[in-house]
Amino acid sequence: MKQRLEQQIQFLLEIDKLKAVLRQSHLVGVKRRENSAEHSWHVALMAMILAEYANEPIDILKVVKMLLIHDLVEIDAGDTYMYLSTEDPDQAQREQQAADRLFSLLPTDQAVEFRAVWDEFEAHSSSEARYAKSLDRLMPLLHNYHTQGQSWQEHQVKSDLVLERNAYMAKGADTLWEYAQQLIKDAVDKGYLDK
Amino acid sequence: MKQRLEQQIQFLLEIDKLKAVLRQSHLVGVKRRENSAEHSWHVALMAMILAEYANEPIDILKVVKMLLIHDLVEIDAGDTYMYLSTEDPDQAQREQQAADRLFSLLPTDQAVEFRAVWDEFEAHSSSEARYAKSLDRLMPLLHNYHTQGQSWQEHQVKSDLVLERNAYMAKGADTLWEYAQQLIKDAVDKGYLDK
Repeated sequence: MKQRLEQQIQFLLEIDKLKAVLRQSHLVGVKRRENSAEHSWHVALMAMILAEYANEPIDILKVVKMLLIHDLVEIDAGDTYMYLSTEDPDQAQREQQAADRLFSLLPTDQAVEFRAVWDEFEAHSSSEARYAKSLDRLMPLLHNYHTQGQSWQEHQVKSDLVLERNAYMAKGADTLWEYAQQLIKDAVDKGYLDK
Repeated sequence: MKQRLEQQIQFLLEIDKLKAVLRQSHLVGVKRRENSAEHSWHVALMAMILAEYANEPIDILKVVKMLLIHDLVEIDAGDTYMYLSTEDPDQAQREQQAADRLFSLLPTDQAVEFRAVWDEFEAHSSSEARYAKSLDRLMPLLHNYHTQGQSWQEHQVKSDLVLERNAYMAKGADTLWEYAQQLIKDAVDKGYLDK
């Protein structure tokens, strides 16, 4: 038992590093970029607040678990900006290796359990994963809009790309995608986002 | 429905400010102090990993919800260091006012639901609250130990006070309190914490 608890504590200490992974999102609450740990907190709580908008029935505990761990692989693999024009061919492999290393710090039963949830998220293979993925897109849109498009401007992102890369949201939560489309339109009208 | 969603989004934007509230804990993963949003992420995930050590039966979804929101009041009331020698007489009132303001941003049904969970946490009035409170003490101990007692040293905290302020942990999770006591003893032996 002592060894089991030690493994669990080692995992919890290792994931402290997620607080050092910076995303491209600028915060509304403070003038700096967001890290992936605080982002994970925000989307997990968002999942509870907006659960009524999920297209399909969901197990909310599974969604929250998924969102709390969805970015852990960035500890080794780094954050990938969602509007990159070219995909990094090695990113998926780096993330798989990170998942292998990180989840295996846990006792075997928990390693298997958490890895399965992460795999499901990555594969969009359940109602929970589709809803979680939708929120993972909505939150950066909100940050962008409410900082007058700061990261869109920095990366010269145009509205067609924003629409294209966020259209997935319709699979998890129609209502939120409608809301998001209006936000994108407003962002163009206000000059936060180039057409 | 549109108005309901707007209220929920406004709440989610407002709580972005929790990322600007700094705690006394120094991180292991990066050389800076921790903020209360990333702390909330860490203890919520900790609750899932260590659930087997709760003294009493718990609804883990409720524990996670509780930990995701437990520090929101700090947006208005600030973080209170757990080893302060004198208590601020106005702190509890400031936190109540913060809870009034923040939760009432939500639609009424959710405002009532989340406020009840926060009240329960504050009053230690359920098995979930006792377990959650225990984790909220264990995590800072781990941060202190694994940064060679950095915040203990900064605030000249002594081992008797650490034992006294953390003894609550036995109410939520005996096994974790045994682990913590060993950690405190080791910290004294290694010179991280003054006797």
